[in-house]
Amino acid sequence: MGKQTGGMIREKLQTSGRILAEYRLDCLPTEAEALARRIALEQTVELPEAQVTDPRIREQVAGRVEEVIQSGGCSTARISYNPELCERQLSQLLILLFGNVSIYRGVKLTDVQLPEGLLSAFPGPAFGIAGLREQSGVHGRPLLATAIKPRGLSLARMTAMAAAFARGGGDIIKDDQNLADDLPAFKTRVAACQKAVTEANLRADGHCLYFPHVSAPAGQLEDYFKYVQGLGIRGVLLCPLVYGLDAICTLAHRHGLVIMAHPALSGGFLGAGAQGIDHGILLGTLFRLAGTDISIFPSFGGRFSFSPAECGGIRDRLREPLGEIRPALPAPAGGMQLENLPDLCRFYGADSVFLIGGALQAADLDLETSTRLFRERLGGHFPEARQETPASAFDRPLSP
Amino acid sequence: MGKQTGGMIREKLQTSGRILAEYRLDCLPTEAEALARRIALEQTVELPEAQVTDPRIREQVAGRVEEVIQSGGCSTARISYNPELCERQLSQLLILLFGNVSIYRGVKLTDVQLPEGLLSAFPGPAFGIAGLREQSGVHGRPLLATAIKPRGLSLARMTAMAAAFARGGGDIIKDDQNLADDLPAFKTRVAACQKAVTEANLRADGHCLYFPHVSAPAGQLEDYFKYVQGLGIRGVLLCPLVYGLDAICTLAHRHGLVIMAHPALSGGFLGAGAQGIDHGILLGTLFRLAGTDISIFPSFGGRFSFSPAECGGIRDRLREPLGEIRPALPAPAGGMQLENLPDLCRFYGADSVFLIGGALQAADLDLETSTRLFRERLGGHFPEARQETPASAFDRPLSP
Repeated sequence: MGKQTGGMIREKLQTSGRILAEYRLDCLPTEAEALARRIALEQTVELPEAQVTDPRIREQVAGRVEEVIQSGGCSTARISYNPELCERQLSQLLILLFGNVSIYRGVKLTDVQLPEGLLSAFPGPAFGIAGLREQSGVHGRPLLATAIKPRGLSLARMTAMAAAFARGGGDIIKDDQNLADDLPAFKTRVAACQKAVTEANLRADGHCLYFPHVSAPAGQLEDYFKYVQGLGIRGVLLCPLVYGLDAICTLAHRHGLVIMAHPALSGGFLGAGAQGIDHGILLGTLFRLAGTDISIFPSFGGRFSFSPAECGGIRDRLREPLGEIRPALPAPAGGMQLENLPDLCRFYGADSVFLIGGALQAADLDLETSTRLFRERLGGHFPEARQETPASAFDRPLSP
Repeated sequence: MGKQTGGMIREKLQTSGRILAEYRLDCLPTEAEALARRIALEQTVELPEAQVTDPRIREQVAGRVEEVIQSGGCSTARISYNPELCERQLSQLLILLFGNVSIYRGVKLTDVQLPEGLLSAFPGPAFGIAGLREQSGVHGRPLLATAIKPRGLSLARMTAMAAAFARGGGDIIKDDQNLADDLPAFKTRVAACQKAVTEANLRADGHCLYFPHVSAPAGQLEDYFKYVQGLGIRGVLLCPLVYGLDAICTLAHRHGLVIMAHPALSGGFLGAGAQGIDHGILLGTLFRLAGTDISIFPSFGGRFSFSPAECGGIRDRLREPLGEIRPALPAPAGGMQLENLPDLCRFYGADSVFLIGGALQAADLDLETSTRLFRERLGGHFPEARQETPASAFDRPLSP
């Protein structure tokens, strides 16, 4: 799926005002037209064609097969939907695009274009790239991030890690997504980590941000977010596919927090080859619609399975024009090493977050020193990089 | 994955008190041990083995490979986890079992056994099979259900459908998962449908239940549930994988509503062959932990891709013993016809819900008559079927 395809689709949409979804069909070429028609009905009226007799429903409710093309041995169907069907709800958009056909065999959602009128229904990132640069004061280079891990560390060791990373010049330290606590323990831990980061920032004249992982029993998320907000913390780590893409992001958005999204459970959706949702559409477009400012994903070359093309798709979807919705930051992670830093810098560019986990801890150096080394090397690739005083230093208390 | 496997696992657990997860590994037999160790670390400490130096973390936090066996050309790894890692949160359990390794290639979660101490953290169905039988008064046979569809029907035609199904002797009429409205429109529609069903019940001495689809913008779910509860409606249709398994089910549970779960988006999680989560574990065990009373899934033989073995897995997981958690009802759907009713009755048995959509509307008969025909045929397969006065007739007002 190249840019050309996306371009073709966008042009068409401007004339129609409809949602356009593209599906790759793993079927015989002779069966593609019929499968495309089945998808168009499945996702809207959920009845066989013969049973949709009302002309108004056929016209206004049923999906419409715009075209089915053959290329490179596979079929691509472009189907348009009436945007009113999703009632300006992100969850209903997911159901409309992929709810039932996710269970079909050999149908993959490969592209989506939404009309402007519908795009305006979704919050998108509250901060986005520009907002994150303001919050962190980092300009002209990728932000350097790491995770507090492994789970099981004592609080003293967690805070020591956070402080060392901040002293070393790291930009964002986030909780591991395995860190979860009841509310009292969460409060103790998060306050201590934020305090450690604040003190290290003051001592080293740094600007490191701390993003705790918000993971709460259902119904208690609000209390967790309120506490985080009350401490003056700027952002959170969330697992949108575990908690519900709309549910958790909307809540964080409402509390004015930067959303860093973790891809936990996404592997199922991304599927193998013929099924699932395109990497860029899921972790790029859809996460961004929900309000994600920073989208974490496993970079190619590490211990996960994403290819350079898949990673490039996520990177591009996060930053491409999308109505009034702000661009967001790709955060490649998973086995990123000093050795491949030059490649990674070229591939992801300045508007990204480099999430380095094991490689910072594996070095023979202590965390502060290895952070400083990574920061220097990173800066070396971006000669125009500069640090300004971040907005986070002014407008809200940073000390618990 | 047969019963034998489950049995072996359960026995082991009783001696350990740990979570046991089984993964099918699509790799060379010689690589299976190493992959199993990587999974055990990935899901817990997220660091390479060499970097986990603290003996307490190695012992208490890192996952433990219990065994790796080869059979039938594939490898199966059984890995145990410390139950404290999920902090009695369903979302964290999902992250622990499958969060990151969902993104590995060739790793499928095929079984899960939870210790009693952890099972007690999850609500499970508030009603379950026995509760649904009380609510509906239907004993000794599957419940007959249908959906109000297609989307786009006028309110008058929706209510006429609901009334016809109730007069014909149907047991549950639910909204289509494509039906979504803002709160005022939702109120109008749901009140009208419930009124139509109530009046039809009174006239025909019937006991049909109506379950509206709750689909709300994030943060408004509570208002929707409150309204439904206030009308005296007994249950709702939800899409847990769209809204967040824990989030939406917990809310419905708290409002005392029967939860009928729709599998929208599940195809992503179920993956293709070598990846994803086993059908029975996802739509059976995990949905049931979250509080699902009735789990809808596409039956074999219809327009979807589930095999008889996969459908049987869901059926069995919903009804098997699971600590103190109530058994739930499988609701096969998707292309169920009069012609295959005998097979379906044998396969799913009395403790199920038959969700018949198109087949009821496709017949040359009107909906009331075709519903009566299906009910009679269904009853014919279960000679001990009987209708009692349902609990729903007593304890709360049914008329809006």
